[in-house]
Amino acid sequence: MPVVDINCDLGESFGAYTLGRDAEILDYVTSANIACGFHAGDPATMRKTVKMAMEKNVAIGAHPGLQDLAGFGRRDMNLSPQEAYDLVLYQIGALSAFVKAEGGSIQHVKPHGALYNMAAKSAPLAEAIAEAVYKVNPDMIFFGLAGSELIKAGEKAGLRTGSEVFSDRTYQPDGTLTSRREPNALITDQNQAVSQVIKMVRNQKVSTAGGPEIDIKADTICIHGDGEHALDFARHITEALKKAGITISRIESFK
Amino acid sequence: MPVVDINCDLGESFGAYTLGRDAEILDYVTSANIACGFHAGDPATMRKTVKMAMEKNVAIGAHPGLQDLAGFGRRDMNLSPQEAYDLVLYQIGALSAFVKAEGGSIQHVKPHGALYNMAAKSAPLAEAIAEAVYKVNPDMIFFGLAGSELIKAGEKAGLRTGSEVFSDRTYQPDGTLTSRREPNALITDQNQAVSQVIKMVRNQKVSTAGGPEIDIKADTICIHGDGEHALDFARHITEALKKAGITISRIESFK
Amino acid sequence: MPVVDINCDLGESFGAYTLGRDAEILDYVTSANIACGFHAGDPATMRKTVKMAMEKNVAIGAHPGLQDLAGFGRRDMNLSPQEAYDLVLYQIGALSAFVKAEGGSIQHVKPHGALYNMAAKSAPLAEAIAEAVYKVNPDMIFFGLAGSELIKAGEKAGLRTGSEVFSDRTYQPDGTLTSRREPNALITDQNQAVSQVIKMVRNQKVSTAGGPEIDIKADTICIHGDGEHALDFARHITEALKKAGITISRIESFK
Amino acid sequence: MPVVDINCDLGESFGAYTLGRDAEILDYVTSANIACGFHAGDPATMRKTVKMAMEKNVAIGAHPGLQDLAGFGRRDMNLSPQEAYDLVLYQIGALSAFVKAEGGSIQHVKPHGALYNMAAKSAPLAEAIAEAVYKVNPDMIFFGLAGSELIKAGEKAGLRTGSEVFSDRTYQPDGTLTSRREPNALITDQNQAVSQVIKMVRNQKVSTAGGPEIDIKADTICIHGDGEHALDFARHITEALKKAGITISRIESFK
Repeated sequence: MPVVDINCDLGESFGAYTLGRDAEILDYVTSANIACGFHAGDPATMRKTVKMAMEKNVAIGAHPGLQDLAGFGRRDMNLSPQEAYDLVLYQIGALSAFVKAEGGSIQHVKPHGALYNMAAKSAPLAEAIAEAVYKVNPDMIFFGLAGSELIKAGEKAGLRTGSEVFSDRTYQPDGTLTSRREPNALITDQNQAVSQVIKMVRNQKVSTAGGPEIDIKADTICIHGDGEHALDFARHITEALKKAGITISRIESFK
Repeated sequence: MPVVDINCDLGESFGAYTLGRDAEILDYVTSANIACGFHAGDPATMRKTVKMAMEKNVAIGAHPGLQDLAGFGRRDMNLSPQEAYDLVLYQIGALSAFVKAEGGSIQHVKPHGALYNMAAKSAPLAEAIAEAVYKVNPDMIFFGLAGSELIKAGEKAGLRTGSEVFSDRTYQPDGTLTSRREPNALITDQNQAVSQVIKMVRNQKVSTAGGPEIDIKADTICIHGDGEHALDFARHITEALKKAGITISRIESFK
Repeated sequence: MPVVDINCDLGESFGAYTLGRDAEILDYVTSANIACGFHAGDPATMRKTVKMAMEKNVAIGAHPGLQDLAGFGRRDMNLSPQEAYDLVLYQIGALSAFVKAEGGSIQHVKPHGALYNMAAKSAPLAEAIAEAVYKVNPDMIFFGLAGSELIKAGEKAGLRTGSEVFSDRTYQPDGTLTSRREPNALITDQNQAVSQVIKMVRNQKVSTAGGPEIDIKADTICIHGDGEHALDFARHITEALKKAGITISRIESFK
Repeated sequence: MPVVDINCDLGESFGAYTLGRDAEILDYVTSANIACGFHAGDPATMRKTVKMAMEKNVAIGAHPGLQDLAGFGRRDMNLSPQEAYDLVLYQIGALSAFVKAEGGSIQHVKPHGALYNMAAKSAPLAEAIAEAVYKVNPDMIFFGLAGSELIKAGEKAGLRTGSEVFSDRTYQPDGTLTSRREPNALITDQNQAVSQVIKMVRNQKVSTAGGPEIDIKADTICIHGDGEHALDFARHITEALKKAGITISRIESFK
């Protein structure tokens, strides 16, 4: 029987600034990627988010990002692999302390934003990040874009990996996401998004923009926790997956 | 036979900025307090400093401080105990990852600068910090000003404590340090500094400014790693302690 | 005929984080205090807020704060007068560039949060801030708590001052605001808040908590731009002031 | 008679961290590029550096950089032109306040590090920066790599420009600097560095790596203020220029 994990970025508030509807979205996900204070998040938010995730029985992941709070970690930076290793190690460590203090454990690590995107295409960056994850705890699962350098680096490092797919993005024939600069990058129709996801999970296939269907591995689906329609869509997709006979379960239960 | 630990603040460089003569001062200390990226230090510096301390067989400690890089964590801030707990947990966690990656362990935690000074006088702050330390690892030793709220809070939390004394500061009859705003706050004469330390370690006594000798507990001596005369004094005090029949040893060997 | 200015803190968003309902609240105020990137705000937000204020014909003020984004500039810090001078000069300068680029001018400066509160009680801090304002442009109006050290320092420096009053806070017999830690610090009843303000503007008097009426100078009323009821209250108070025969006008028109 | 300006990056200290030998290098330069608090520098350092430059009769320039203190503004970031405009406007404004407070004026603006390098190759970035400079004060001189997009953008904006040349870098046949990743990027021999500079100023020509001599415009020479040999080289080059009959004068005297 097909099974899939659903992950969401959480704990992105900072100081007086609130972002996302964390308490509500936690009802629809099985894995939480918690910001670690570099691109978003702060110590108090980390503590509260870890606690909330544990109360709602959602698996906890570290979501390390670039040190660019002003740009929310979304701007590519010319980072050396060593710098990426150091950043990731630091942030996983910081989150680990809150998780340990609350009596939990970290299930996975997913790089954030520009760090994720850059490393998806760069083997040296991806390998540096995977090494940092392995050094902290080789039992953690390493999330990355399905088919990307992140997944290859995770496997090479000896980590279990979580191949991530997107419901609201179109794919290119080479398996990469269509750039957001292209007009057809986003899937805005909920039904189309759900169909894409179900096909990815059940058939391990995805249609591509103007190309053939390609193979894809779908361990975990990324959904959003902010924006107007986030909760609606979260509800919609979880219901549709269940109706399609797909089990939704935290990734550590099946990897 | 009397025994004492010698600690020093290390890893205070940041990005392009270098501070302190870490490689050299490590030859004279048994415990290193490593900055964790808030008041000073950064991920790369933490990695290098941890590695260097381990190579020189110096015990590693976390040195969490206020989130005030511009003020080097030396400016008092009106922090709630919860904020102090969160800050400290975050920073110990971050350092732990580097220590774990290098195959070491954290011996102790010593709050930095204004956080240390404020908590030395405030039981709620001290208790919040001690709780954070305990939550990460109850086996770590908690450093604080001898006789202060920090030591009381550490004991209350169930932690082993390291009572810290200063060679270059004068003491008040109530056991506190003379404020730096007072003219006689600093001991600039090396011989006087050494005499004070030897008496503290051997007799558990210290002279006070214009008052009687008082009891003091001296588990660890704080020395400095920057400034012109830091290395000179480090050499001087270690030789004098040995000559006085005092063993210098990392604190975990005798607490 | 009585006249008063209404001011509000604006431009407090940061990067991906939105705070306040700036576009809407601008319809009800005559003076905008724009955050300058230390406690809140960022260059893009400053540019947009300056432009929006000018379009809505609202006078522009600099709102410099402590370098504590994590604490929104609300935590007291042990700052020297020199540090306060430097911080304020820097931030006024930064805002000035955006104002100049848009073809406007800065009407006033109001310190933010903990900087405002600390300087209201500390003559040296207040004087350092007033000096910074004077040095950039002696024609700017200096906002501060009515009757506080800020107003005294502004006058001493040779600046025009804006005595600020609060509609939603109670006053002590010595003219200070009742501490937020006290149960009766806030006025939550809108009618009571409006009555207090009208009396302050018309009669230059205010009732005090358990004491006699005292004299108070009311050049400008502080209202809030975030929170659920902010817009409601803004509408309510402007209507009530007009009904009471009080003209609402930017402070530079009557000082 | 040939004339040239000599510029140097200054005011790069931050908080407790000291960088560069500002007081000494000021004796050898005619234009100071003062860091504005983003990639380096802080309000106190800016105040002191402005004052020192004025006392030594060195012209003041703003040296805005990326908001990347950890990387000293040297890491390329994927910045939009609007973001570059905002960053630069903010930083020039901040420095302007200190300059105004001390009774001086800003002669020029030179982007720093990665911002300089990225904009040298990107017309949209360069034009956004030039526009920011023009908006603050159209009389300021815009420094950029000789022949680069920065100079073109400055001219297009209606600014006077300062074509900058490097004594210690080799040039490519297309007029760009040889990448630091190439083995022959740096000129380490002082005499060769001096010869290159004299030829650039006198003949407006420069040799290229493995190519023909090309035309180059040399309004201002960049020298360094830190590193072991900085002062030595500064002394050496100024003497050599004078001996070659070249006048050294702040750029505003001849542009």
